[in-house]
Amino acid sequence: SFSVPQRICRHASKVIGRKKGFINKSMGITELICSADMATGVKMGVVCGLYGGAVINLGSPEQVERLYVPVTVSSKHFTSFCMTCFPLCKGPMSWKPEFLYNPSSKLGRCEFIIHTPCEDAQKMYIGNAMKGNYAAVFAQLIINGESQGPHCFVVPVRDQYGVMWPGVTATDMKHKEGLHGVDNGILIFDNVRIPRENLLDKFGSVSADGRYSSPIRRKGDRFNAMLAALTPTRLALTVQAMAAMKVIVSTSTPTSFGPKDQDEVKIIEHQTQYLRLMPHLAATLALTFTTRYTAGLMDDALCQGEDLQSNRPLQALVAGLKAYSTWANVACLQECRECTGGMGFMMENRIPSLKCDSDVFVTFEGDNMVMLQVVVRELMMQYTRQFEDSMVAGLIRNWTSSVSDSLRTSFLGFSVDKIGDLNFLLKALSYRERVLQRSLAARLHAKINKSKEEFFSAWNSCLHHVTSLALAHIHKVTLKLFALAVQECQVNDDRDLLTKFCLLHGTSLVYQERAWYLEHNYFSPGASRQIRSQLLELCKSVKDDALKVVADFNIPPCCIQAPIAGVAKPGAEWAFYPQPQSPTTQPHTQQRATSKL
Amino acid sequence: SFSVPQRICRHASKVIGRKKGFINKSMGITELICSADMATGVKMGVVCGLYGGAVINLGSPEQVERLYVPVTVSSKHFTSFCMTCFPLCKGPMSWKPEFLYNPSSKLGRCEFIIHTPCEDAQKMYIGNAMKGNYAAVFAQLIINGESQGPHCFVVPVRDQYGVMWPGVTATDMKHKEGLHGVDNGILIFDNVRIPRENLLDKFGSVSADGRYSSPIRRKGDRFNAMLAALTPTRLALTVQAMAAMKVIVSTSTPTSFGPKDQDEVKIIEHQTQYLRLMPHLAATLALTFTTRYTAGLMDDALCQGEDLQSNRPLQALVAGLKAYSTWANVACLQECRECTGGMGFMMENRIPSLKCDSDVFVTFEGDNMVMLQVVVRELMMQYTRQFEDSMVAGLIRNWTSSVSDSLRTSFLGFSVDKIGDLNFLLKALSYRERVLQRSLAARLHAKINKSKEEFFSAWNSCLHHVTSLALAHIHKVTLKLFALAVQECQVNDDRDLLTKFCLLHGTSLVYQERAWYLEHNYFSPGASRQIRSQLLELCKSVKDDALKVVADFNIPPCCIQAPIAGVAKPGAEWAFYPQPQSPTTQPHTQQRATSKL
Repeated sequence: SFSVPQRICRHASKVIGRKKGFINKSMGITELICSADMATGVKMGVVCGLYGGAVINLGSPEQVERLYVPVTVSSKHFTSFCMTCFPLCKGPMSWKPEFLYNPSSKLGRCEFIIHTPCEDAQKMYIGNAMKGNYAAVFAQLIINGESQGPHCFVVPVRDQYGVMWPGVTATDMKHKEGLHGVDNGILIFDNVRIPRENLLDKFGSVSADGRYSSPIRRKGDRFNAMLAALTPTRLALTVQAMAAMKVIVSTSTPTSFGPKDQDEVKIIEHQTQYLRLMPHLAATLALTFTTRYTAGLMDDALCQGEDLQSNRPLQALVAGLKAYSTWANVACLQECRECTGGMGFMMENRIPSLKCDSDVFVTFEGDNMVMLQVVVRELMMQYTRQFEDSMVAGLIRNWTSSVSDSLRTSFLGFSVDKIGDLNFLLKALSYRERVLQRSLAARLHAKINKSKEEFFSAWNSCLHHVTSLALAHIHKVTLKLFALAVQECQVNDDRDLLTKFCLLHGTSLVYQERAWYLEHNYFSPGASRQIRSQLLELCKSVKDDALKVVADFNIPPCCIQAPIAGVAKPGAEWAFYPQPQSPTTQPHTQQRATSKL
Repeated sequence: SFSVPQRICRHASKVIGRKKGFINKSMGITELICSADMATGVKMGVVCGLYGGAVINLGSPEQVERLYVPVTVSSKHFTSFCMTCFPLCKGPMSWKPEFLYNPSSKLGRCEFIIHTPCEDAQKMYIGNAMKGNYAAVFAQLIINGESQGPHCFVVPVRDQYGVMWPGVTATDMKHKEGLHGVDNGILIFDNVRIPRENLLDKFGSVSADGRYSSPIRRKGDRFNAMLAALTPTRLALTVQAMAAMKVIVSTSTPTSFGPKDQDEVKIIEHQTQYLRLMPHLAATLALTFTTRYTAGLMDDALCQGEDLQSNRPLQALVAGLKAYSTWANVACLQECRECTGGMGFMMENRIPSLKCDSDVFVTFEGDNMVMLQVVVRELMMQYTRQFEDSMVAGLIRNWTSSVSDSLRTSFLGFSVDKIGDLNFLLKALSYRERVLQRSLAARLHAKINKSKEEFFSAWNSCLHHVTSLALAHIHKVTLKLFALAVQECQVNDDRDLLTKFCLLHGTSLVYQERAWYLEHNYFSPGASRQIRSQLLELCKSVKDDALKVVADFNIPPCCIQAPIAGVAKPGAEWAFYPQPQSPTTQPHTQQRATSKL
């Protein structure tokens, strides 16, 4: 398992100078590795994305040379990343684990002392905790008794022979639902001494005589800047979820084209079967184009030397995608498991193991509920920015445009023949986002400014509204970027095929929220019923293209690893293998239909 | 693991005479065993419910004495049940595994020969296949070259030392997503000879000279009668799913009442947290009362000597409950896993293992999609029965009452103040069922009688409609039976508490389908928004009673087995244990609030 990280890390090292396309290439590599084995992908993410990302983005060039290149690129060391604390602990700004600056140590050199003062301050769920040699640890930086907020330090954990660094204790957290290949543990630091030079000092440094300085004044902003630098790692999580969806959709779809007897009805012909599977295939395509576009945005920003912390819309987009994609993954894998019956419960078909491996994504590296709130904080900032300081004037001005919106769009509600149009779907999703944004702003304004409610109480009583808005925003983004990809497609046949799946994705998103559209008189009851018919029709019409799309995912059989998809598996000779099918439905040998997926 | 089945089987044996309350008691025992360990519960289900149920219900008193009492009740033997065939095989009426009657064997006695003629005829996913001594096997009965349809035979598989019966091969199907304690395998029979007396002969017997006779003329009816006898086992599956829900809700709820610091906001106070958890708690209560009532119906029927095969409504109810409850289980466990964050992913908290164990329920012992079709077949039969032979007249007559229905109920749509009323919710659910039933009948009639479509094609093009109707029916049933239980509750405090949860269950069911109600003008947009507010309000208001209800599930700590619920677990000392909480929120030591759950 060392050889893959080595190659990737070399690649990473070469492009520390941020060559064009670095993020997009990294995401491609992440997808491939996760298709082969999710635990390897996650371990890689910890080593290169989290530890590596911390050193590269939060460290000085000297620190990158000293702490990244020899540690990560050599692949002689495993590394880990310690952010998560005790589950019920307060937020990072009041974290308990701490670094004390100790200017005159016994050894005559300046040091930091890292210490875990109480149980709540233990670092939990740390990937590579039982194998890692170095850890990038976030903790309060305390100088002369004053906290400067969380900072990141590289702490030695154990040497290459596995001997623990003095004062560090690692406890195995043992068995999990999945990701059995990842060693998660608890790290406890008992007055551990580390050199002063191990504080990653891009956003805050300490001089030899103990003076703290930072380019950013507010502690909160400083920590946010550090988190922003890890945005690419968060996008990688969306790619990991998407990789699992591609593998499982590619596993389940061919099976639905049985049974083999010519005179029997194929499983895929059952209305419920194609209705359950096809929207997930469309969502997988939408995620493919969305992540590629988002990685491109990141590449552009980094190429232009832009720091990610100033690009809040991009951070919000990545947070929202993380939540949307990991839930889409859970829903997709569960449906595929059910649509393949008892075979989907058998380990040899890989569906259950990928289901268990990827289940953690919804809560790790930022719980999805928190991610959605990140999205909405940005949407609210954008919204209030329009109105300068007069919130009330803004609300009134906006109320007018809201009314005209409703008038314009309720007309659409009647012209049911337009529903099949992609523009109709895009408009519907944008409308929902806009109305939810406006009404949330108005509700918060009324609660906080008028009724003088505390912020937490006001925000909390709108939390259902908040999460609806965040998802509405991300739904719109995925459809927009899918539509853009369709538009840019140069091959006619491919464009026609993708258009159908794009329509299906949009129809499925609108169908899910049709109650909201009816409540807002955006749809007439007739239009809503039409949306359902359209969903059924589109699912039926794309099902015959499903094998083409799956073949274009181009996942090597060694990654599919499932007898039910017709891939031979040593050690599972007794498993169910479908008989070779007619050439038009042969899995994984299909002529590629679309140019690049 | 032998001691538990032994006790249960003795109990079963004593009551073969069908004493009052037998089914309800069996379900209680099933629930308890599944709370402790799902794999043991499933193995027990195979031994007592499936093998035992087959012999008791399909065999003669002599066969019960010979094949059930010494085999199952002694607990010296493991048994299995072979119905499921090759995954893509045709339905049971065209099954390939076969029994040939062989009146003059070498040994001079009448025998059957059981044979697996081809790969498709292998018996797959058989529980206890790697340990079982006897199997109840379903296969085509062929006499003089003519098939009499599927019948059930007791076939020896291996002796008490594990030596295989001549001609029987068992292949381990190895690893699954969950239920690791259950040995599933493939059974293949190569001209296996078994005595004539091992054909369970209640619904079909063969005389020594090879003459077949049966009390039921049509082959299809015969097989349906055999399946009907297994209805109690299907209800047990609902109880198993409910047991998992109770354990996991009891595990996750107390955790949400952290963190321990008095000055911090408890997790349960977050709107999204109580909105995610409370409807599942309400559904768990609804299932508790629904299964108890259904088991009571079965007890009454059996006490009155009624055969279950004639009671199609009961069979449909049990099929629908199986689908509803097992999906409710998947949704509940996933939400609980997410609401407990990383802790819900850790094996020591039992959430992931129960999630993996119970995931198979949605497809085994009858795929949920098939179960829903069983429900609708019965609803359609009931519907057409009203109209004697004139389908068209019936449709027209009914159309009139449909219009008046719509008029009567659209009035309700405006009186939004009535929404909090249980009657409003019950009426709404009944209305949806009735309209879907009527419109499905009309659609099928138009397709089959007027447009002369083939039945499969007509039925298949309505499959989404079919599954919606089936779930609408079961939703109504669960709310009705929950309401009945509330009404019968004698303790005032308990009744008040249960009323709130019953309202929540109904509101949550109606909320899920509010788009449909809006499409049918049953709700005004305002009423629909009111339903959402009511859902939020009810979830908020019941959250403080959640710990009382969970305490009343009265699950022993040894079944909870989760550090996050405050239950000490040997071997997981490093796990997260919540600090003892204030007496009012102490988990599992709560004073019992409701009399009996």
